[in-house]
Amino acid sequence: MQYLPDFIRKLIDEFDKLPGIGPKTSAKLVFDLLHRKEDIRELSQALDKAYKNIHFCPQCFDLSNDGLCNICKNPQRDQTVICVVAGNQDVDAIEKTNEFNGIYHLLNGLISPLEGLTPDKLKIKELADRLAKNNIREVIIALDQSLEGEATTLYLSKLLKNHSVKVSQLARGIPMGANIEYTDQATLSSALQNRKEL
Amino acid sequence: MQYLPDFIRKLIDEFDKLPGIGPKTSAKLVFDLLHRKEDIRELSQALDKAYKNIHFCPQCFDLSNDGLCNICKNPQRDQTVICVVAGNQDVDAIEKTNEFNGIYHLLNGLISPLEGLTPDKLKIKELADRLAKNNIREVIIALDQSLEGEATTLYLSKLLKNHSVKVSQLARGIPMGANIEYTDQATLSSALQNRKEL
Repeated sequence: MQYLPDFIRKLIDEFDKLPGIGPKTSAKLVFDLLHRKEDIRELSQALDKAYKNIHFCPQCFDLSNDGLCNICKNPQRDQTVICVVAGNQDVDAIEKTNEFNGIYHLLNGLISPLEGLTPDKLKIKELADRLAKNNIREVIIALDQSLEGEATTLYLSKLLKNHSVKVSQLARGIPMGANIEYTDQATLSSALQNRKEL
Repeated sequence: MQYLPDFIRKLIDEFDKLPGIGPKTSAKLVFDLLHRKEDIRELSQALDKAYKNIHFCPQCFDLSNDGLCNICKNPQRDQTVICVVAGNQDVDAIEKTNEFNGIYHLLNGLISPLEGLTPDKLKIKELADRLAKNNIREVIIALDQSLEGEATTLYLSKLLKNHSVKVSQLARGIPMGANIEYTDQATLSSALQNRKEL
């Protein structure tokens, strides 16, 4: 890439920092973008605006433009039910179901000592503070079914025992469209144990 | 995504325009980026700089900051051999081999009538002009072995017949690391026909 002008190499380096984007994809994105001059400007301006306006909701730590986020400040939402998620994508996925009318709490990650993510690095203390201060009826833990997700759920469930609040976690079972034959044993055991009377 | 501030949705839309990036990946990139404030600014500034400085080499149409690109203006490079490629990534791939010391000509695509890319949309006329004006010894056609690449190679080879210039194309054969058993018939036939005496 030595033959490319400096500012293009710098741009490729910047795209390379994004998650899941390696040097090759980064170069592809930049080469494509540089042929559409208007889009370069639009993206640059959108980033600049984001840089200047980005705030995090002081209550749930979701993205916000100023003060409380749109969900926390919505009077239509039930402020007594908190759904605990790892990050922004999970809020997005749950919002799309239109099944949840409470508010959220973003941990900003999952406990993963190998990656240096110990409980004190996550917004866990802030969750306990919210429970102590506000009048919360229920906490729904909605974390990934991964090792890190399980560890975090366990940690939270122990912590929340000290609070007089109902604690639940998302149901485990067979996902929509799955075949019994190809479902893994852990999921199938879980689905059997949690079977629902018809 | 309605619950997100406008400027974040705009940013997700802008990333969504990049090739190979869908709305889900775009949201993931943006959510990740928004947690690293310094990187937002760096990317925004790099884009702004690219927007202000980007030029295309008037000779080969590669990226440049002003006037001729770094390859065209390099006196060490053989200005009598032109390698014709489809785009920037191909220049990059050929430069990495350190095998080529000539200069390039970027067509900015391949002939593909279905996508509206007819020969007049590509820098083909400009290639003919270069041959007429400059003292070119050889043209090496280095295009993909796809339908579009083959069509473009055929078109160029017919066009270049009118010029007194040596025209060659990249050798076809079995790639490094390939098994004879699993090589497709077309490649194997080609490798047989083009066999090299030892």
